[in-house]
Amino acid sequence: MNKAVILFSGGLDSTVTAAVARQEGYALYLLTIAYGQRHSIEITHARQIAKWLEAREHKIFELDLRAFGGSALTGDLDVPIDRSSQDRESAIPETYVPARNTIFLSLALAYAEVLQANKIFFGANIRDYSGYPDCRPEFVQAFMEVARRGTKRGVHGAEIAILTPLILMTKAEIIQKGVALNVPFHLTHSCYAPRKDGSVCGRCDSCQIRKEGFEEAGISDPALSATFET
Amino acid sequence: MNKAVILFSGGLDSTVTAAVARQEGYALYLLTIAYGQRHSIEITHARQIAKWLEAREHKIFELDLRAFGGSALTGDLDVPIDRSSQDRESAIPETYVPARNTIFLSLALAYAEVLQANKIFFGANIRDYSGYPDCRPEFVQAFMEVARRGTKRGVHGAEIAILTPLILMTKAEIIQKGVALNVPFHLTHSCYAPRKDGSVCGRCDSCQIRKEGFEEAGISDPALSATFET
Repeated sequence: MNKAVILFSGGLDSTVTAAVARQEGYALYLLTIAYGQRHSIEITHARQIAKWLEAREHKIFELDLRAFGGSALTGDLDVPIDRSSQDRESAIPETYVPARNTIFLSLALAYAEVLQANKIFFGANIRDYSGYPDCRPEFVQAFMEVARRGTKRGVHGAEIAILTPLILMTKAEIIQKGVALNVPFHLTHSCYAPRKDGSVCGRCDSCQIRKEGFEEAGISDPALSATFET
Repeated sequence: MNKAVILFSGGLDSTVTAAVARQEGYALYLLTIAYGQRHSIEITHARQIAKWLEAREHKIFELDLRAFGGSALTGDLDVPIDRSSQDRESAIPETYVPARNTIFLSLALAYAEVLQANKIFFGANIRDYSGYPDCRPEFVQAFMEVARRGTKRGVHGAEIAILTPLILMTKAEIIQKGVALNVPFHLTHSCYAPRKDGSVCGRCDSCQIRKEGFEEAGISDPALSATFET
């Protein structure tokens, strides 16, 4: 079996991405980054979904981006709430974490090179996104060039490709893809500012985008009625 | 004063690089990465040199690349010793750490973006190097494109440049540059496999390249006679 590294947060998008990789026949090596995110409960979700995915390996890698700060997701700024889709699309929001996906992809690259894996799956999405520069195809393309030039495998001609199967989909399309793959949506976590009991706020950009996606897909979100054991 | 982030290991090259940035008038924000390197004594050296450099800030960032392995520097493989310069240049050696400089630059990028710094200084060197792909100008160029496309600052047109003042120099030239800038060479550390008391092995590629550099520059290495307090 060909090996693939999956950047895997425990959220909806990375879970569907992992399910796509599994359907395509890859042995899954999941990489979850504990970066000091305020919604670190997603890591607990990630562990449970990893079992469902029958991952070959699930690595939780720790690095604390609170050391740099500058983001609502690492606690410096407030998470914006109750924004209209127009507001959400007007500018890069405070939930942007400086250079986060560059850091995550570079760690995935290290993992892939050591495993001798030729594929990294990355659940970035440009359409229903919050304006993050590091979720765009042109960013991913540039990073692939770094991977080619900056690794032993790349120099030796064994390219490590970064696959982004969801990058142009709407949230509703991602959800429909997940339904087709039997993704356990009740285990996925998408909220930026969960309450202390782990329940979702329902008001942050991520909750709103998810809610609108399920509405557009015409199905109810199983996570809202599920009891999740932490 | 303009701010600059310096990737700063406490070795000879990154110390000269930081001294160059200081001479050019930048306020120095040093970033040292504790990545599980077997020569972690370099971090103690880095702290002492940071004082000499009068750095505005010195951040020690921890992430454990032993989680991925695949390198002599993180303990999986043996550090090669007693190699001729021909042997050293024949292939990428076991001391290559998969994707290491991509990871380091991505962390420097996060730090620079939060600081609103427009410059990252990186002491990579191609000529006297050990064949690392991620020390070459074409790698650095590719990473700058990632910085442009993948950050809020880049998207807004405030480019973060990566400066590599030593990249084409020989080790002797780097040493002469350091002499001109009064660099405290006795505090710098270059050995990949130091003994338990912190003294250098004298036999790894890094020790040999340093030794040959000082010989070519026609001066004796102050680190070899210095007593270093840990």
